[in-house]
Amino acid sequence: MSTETPKSSDDVEEGVVLRPRFDAAGLITCVTTDAATGEVLMVAHMNEEALRKTVATGEAWYFSRSRKALWRKGETSGHVQRVADIRIDCDQDAVWLRVEQTGGAACHTGRRSCFYRAVVAAQAGGAELKFVAAERVFDPAAVYGDHKHGDD
Amino acid sequence: MSTETPKSSDDVEEGVVLRPRFDAAGLITCVTTDAATGEVLMVAHMNEEALRKTVATGEAWYFSRSRKALWRKGETSGHVQRVADIRIDCDQDAVWLRVEQTGGAACHTGRRSCFYRAVVAAQAGGAELKFVAAERVFDPAAVYGDHKHGDD
Repeated sequence: MSTETPKSSDDVEEGVVLRPRFDAAGLITCVTTDAATGEVLMVAHMNEEALRKTVATGEAWYFSRSRKALWRKGETSGHVQRVADIRIDCDQDAVWLRVEQTGGAACHTGRRSCFYRAVVAAQAGGAELKFVAAERVFDPAAVYGDHKHGDD
Repeated sequence: MSTETPKSSDDVEEGVVLRPRFDAAGLITCVTTDAATGEVLMVAHMNEEALRKTVATGEAWYFSRSRKALWRKGETSGHVQRVADIRIDCDQDAVWLRVEQTGGAACHTGRRSCFYRAVVAAQAGGAELKFVAAERVFDPAAVYGDHKHGDD
């Protein structure tokens, strides 16, 4: 991949050279969906090394902002993500992974997806949350112990 | 919605109060998928007002980082997004919209999705891009004229 400053938006949008636009912290946003169902499992970040390792290994690697460390998804839980497809968007500042989620759950709370609550209009005005996919596939205490593992 | 500092991660992860964690720029990441196909159409950002308007109107509103302005998706192209479902993730720093994309294209390049290129391993090592969903639904020059409209 190239990290040079691109010459024009056409190079970035219509070219075949990977020129990821990492932010000031060196990160790019990554959306991960279930390859079978299309469900969004999680939104995380990648640094250059995480993106490189994901391409090279076919498993999802991210960069944990809370732990400030490269993070192989499933390294603690064993629930790795096998990558079926990697896409990048028009201006190359977001990545989309389609994965097979082994173990059936991507969220550290033990749920299939991190997006287990809907945002709905509240009767009193404003918005509130409603649990819509709250079932847990695994017990996070059994997998992570007392250690709160906010990323994985 | 509440923008107070949450008391604990349990409030954020297991509660029913909307407490979006906007970043230092006042923004939250938003992933938008096609409600019918599950395809990721785009990744954009929302400020508090964009999120509020999206909940209230049932159409997608974002905040344009390049134009530093609230942005009703489709305001130029007419291709608005009708929102079927709004989700928020475990730590409330990402939103997922499932939408009906009117006009059939979310990307300002005229394509259905912004994610029209795959990242693939290159024979010489590293990675390169491959167009996989390159067909244009509309001609961006006809819709936007000479004005390069990077967001919409």
